[in-house]
Amino acid sequence: MATLPPEIECLAWLLGTWRGQGHGGYPSIDDFAYVDETTFDCWGKPFVRYSQRTHLVDGTPSHSETGYLRPRDGGVEGVIGEPIGIAETYAGTLDGHKLELTSTAIVRTPTAKEILGVHRVFELDDDGTLAVLVDMAAVGHPMSFHLAARLERVA
Amino acid sequence: MATLPPEIECLAWLLGTWRGQGHGGYPSIDDFAYVDETTFDCWGKPFVRYSQRTHLVDGTPSHSETGYLRPRDGGVEGVIGEPIGIAETYAGTLDGHKLELTSTAIVRTPTAKEILGVHRVFELDDDGTLAVLVDMAAVGHPMSFHLAARLERVA
Repeated sequence: MATLPPEIECLAWLLGTWRGQGHGGYPSIDDFAYVDETTFDCWGKPFVRYSQRTHLVDGTPSHSETGYLRPRDGGVEGVIGEPIGIAETYAGTLDGHKLELTSTAIVRTPTAKEILGVHRVFELDDDGTLAVLVDMAAVGHPMSFHLAARLERVA
Repeated sequence: MATLPPEIECLAWLLGTWRGQGHGGYPSIDDFAYVDETTFDCWGKPFVRYSQRTHLVDGTPSHSETGYLRPRDGGVEGVIGEPIGIAETYAGTLDGHKLELTSTAIVRTPTAKEILGVHRVFELDDDGTLAVLVDMAAVGHPMSFHLAARLERVA
């Protein structure tokens, strides 16, 4: 990894590849369990790339998303794109090893589901695991629990 | 690579990792030369992930962008996110080995530059190289040339 730009030092705790199990649900779907592999990387530019893939516990590929974060004006802003035709911008706050991101705008392709808001938390716990939480307001439901995962650093 | 879903067969010519040189310009900036490394991958879900990084010819890291494409209703739709706080949705047409994508919506974080439209072409030429063209309407300029690169498949 290249030398970390000073702007990214506040996000250094997030860098690396993480893997672990999660569970998901939403008022419109059945609960499900999944395996999440997430990478945050930086190669010398003042931003962090986020790449995520999940599969179901039987190995079936499931979701993926990818985007960028950058510290800005005392907070963190970013974008995330999803293969289902959704792209989001985020504004976030950083409190030590806890990053909270709230969608500020969402655009979608004509065939995408309607997602009106997303709230995400990434938090490094004292035991070194990364807790990931995603709430979502979508398809007519108010902001509700969607995903919770606990990841261990694997690289 | 996993078995290609039938929906993705029309994009199979794009899959792989590509590398080559490009040149860029815009009315608001000086011309520049760069090296582009682009990967399109699919792991069994009916979408293609797009990951791009560039560096200047002296090795300095430059741009990056990432997103997804999926065939839909006879065309291709997609999303692309950029680390400068821009996220785009796209509608596209596929004509053999030529994919043209036109932005349909663009959202940006408060600190991002104003980009009003992006037009992209990926075309596989008879010699096996991939031509990449990007035009952009941004910071007060109408749709204008921004990037042209020619890439060879490296993986």
